[in-house]
Amino acid sequence: MKTKTLLIILFFISHCSLLIAQTDIPGGSLNAISASMNNQWCLVIHGGAGGPPKGTMSVEDEQAYLQKLDEALAIGSNILRNGGSSLDAVESVVRFMEDCPLFNAGKGAVLTEKGVAELDASIMDGKTLRAGAVAGVTTIRNPVSAARKVMEHSPHVLLIDGGAEGFAKAQGLEMVDPSYFITPKIRERWEKSKKQDPAKGKDQEKKPGTVGAVALDQNGNLAAATSTGGMMNKMHGRIGDSPIIGAGTYANNSTCAVSCTGYGEYFIRNVVAYDISAMMEYRGMPLEEVARIVIHEKLKPQGGEGGLIAVDKEGRIVMEFNTNAMFRGYMMSDGRKEVMIY
Amino acid sequence: MKTKTLLIILFFISHCSLLIAQTDIPGGSLNAISASMNNQWCLVIHGGAGGPPKGTMSVEDEQAYLQKLDEALAIGSNILRNGGSSLDAVESVVRFMEDCPLFNAGKGAVLTEKGVAELDASIMDGKTLRAGAVAGVTTIRNPVSAARKVMEHSPHVLLIDGGAEGFAKAQGLEMVDPSYFITPKIRERWEKSKKQDPAKGKDQEKKPGTVGAVALDQNGNLAAATSTGGMMNKMHGRIGDSPIIGAGTYANNSTCAVSCTGYGEYFIRNVVAYDISAMMEYRGMPLEEVARIVIHEKLKPQGGEGGLIAVDKEGRIVMEFNTNAMFRGYMMSDGRKEVMIY
Repeated sequence: MKTKTLLIILFFISHCSLLIAQTDIPGGSLNAISASMNNQWCLVIHGGAGGPPKGTMSVEDEQAYLQKLDEALAIGSNILRNGGSSLDAVESVVRFMEDCPLFNAGKGAVLTEKGVAELDASIMDGKTLRAGAVAGVTTIRNPVSAARKVMEHSPHVLLIDGGAEGFAKAQGLEMVDPSYFITPKIRERWEKSKKQDPAKGKDQEKKPGTVGAVALDQNGNLAAATSTGGMMNKMHGRIGDSPIIGAGTYANNSTCAVSCTGYGEYFIRNVVAYDISAMMEYRGMPLEEVARIVIHEKLKPQGGEGGLIAVDKEGRIVMEFNTNAMFRGYMMSDGRKEVMIY
Repeated sequence: MKTKTLLIILFFISHCSLLIAQTDIPGGSLNAISASMNNQWCLVIHGGAGGPPKGTMSVEDEQAYLQKLDEALAIGSNILRNGGSSLDAVESVVRFMEDCPLFNAGKGAVLTEKGVAELDASIMDGKTLRAGAVAGVTTIRNPVSAARKVMEHSPHVLLIDGGAEGFAKAQGLEMVDPSYFITPKIRERWEKSKKQDPAKGKDQEKKPGTVGAVALDQNGNLAAATSTGGMMNKMHGRIGDSPIIGAGTYANNSTCAVSCTGYGEYFIRNVVAYDISAMMEYRGMPLEEVARIVIHEKLKPQGGEGGLIAVDKEGRIVMEFNTNAMFRGYMMSDGRKEVMIY
């Protein structure tokens, strides 16, 4: 009987370890993590910066987000652990998050002023500096996969709108009716925000949810991907930083891989993702320091709310943000793993 | 009679001085020009990099391009000389070149695979780091002015397609039928290129014609603008570097203003316009040196054909390219002025 009780306790502990890891949040200060010598690969993900202050979300909602971040990490980590490429890892993670209605990308994305989900995504390969992106698409189930097709099967980097959709269809990607992306919860929020006065409506825009992933694989290759529905009630045709190489996404084996989230216009004007790489390359500064400078010293004073995740070629990672929260997580080949909100 | 003859000769000389300046081309080596202490303002323009080797174009065609470059310089210089802003100067110059059928922007732009002129443009204010851009538009007569409206009258940076057109119309800009942009010459070239095999069709894409301008005004403010029809026979929805802040256009009073032209995908992947600024800021290198590195050492080995014009905060200018030719010119407050092709 004693052994049986012990086994039950061990079983309980092992199944609760995830919950313990999730609630053991170091107050958002653990935003830069050094790689150990054994780190063959690592993966960092985000589900958007912004959101309400700590204590506003229900515990159930927090747990739902943390659970999905954990599942996303598991998908990408499996690929990296088995020797897969960082490109495959970031695409798979972002696909999963696009399919998850909790995040503002793919299914569950916010709606434009016209009530349509106009989606943007990009991906970049740090080994070759090749990149692909789509913007303003409404019928491609997984925009990040369309971005990868643009990168690998077209001479182009950025395709928009009907051109991107025709290409994605010809490439055999799954096409959906625009209504596929609209969840009842999002439609309700959109209808509410339409009724609000413009000032209050603007608060709605700050809802987090852009998704992204960066990874270093066992071959030392970096990759980054980002996907979003943009801002709630955004103007038809408005494009943010997510599909812009250098603004929302950048990867270069000689420096780092970056995925951004936040008030996209500021990220475009500050060329944020490439700026991280440029400061590392041209100033010889560590990733941790450049991320802090860009997010807190450059963007914050301008009103550029948001955050970014990045991994450098040595496997050092950052998850830096100047907002109340950023859904995020990381996993490394040495076993370290965490999912966090605040 | 002697006096009359002298007057006629003087009249002839004064009216031929333009022609003399145009044909006195220093073999493309005069690509970086230092400002004198008296330089209160300066303006640099381009009408696209690429094109056939020297000796291929007829003298008449060359003179037609040089004449239009000269007229464009006069428009921008008048604004800067009278104390106008660099933003007004670059917008006015690019508007003029969009209206000129010789260049691949606005009227006379190349056509997509579907036979439509899909236009992209952007503008950036070095003083405020504000920026505006439109992409994939087919009914706005002057896309660069739509880009400026986005910058000054919307919270956004980049609007595409129907969204951009609806906004431009609401802002009171002149809207035209898509057929307005199509000249008989371009339609003929498009029809020819459709008949060519894909390999030869690709050569067609290298036709220069993207237009751009950078300026420093008497208040020390920098600005940059770029406008293009992209590549002949491009895929519907393909967006190049011209409307991408950081890739085709960038301006920052603390460094420089840049406008690019060339194989857009390489300019996006290399974040060219911002890279010029970043190398100046983070490495403390002069504009002349960073332009040479980016155009010849970074882009050229990758196959990234093209060029750029730039002016720094001291009024030093560069016009660097790795192609056979780049239509270009500059004018400075100390009186120096030149228009060149090769």
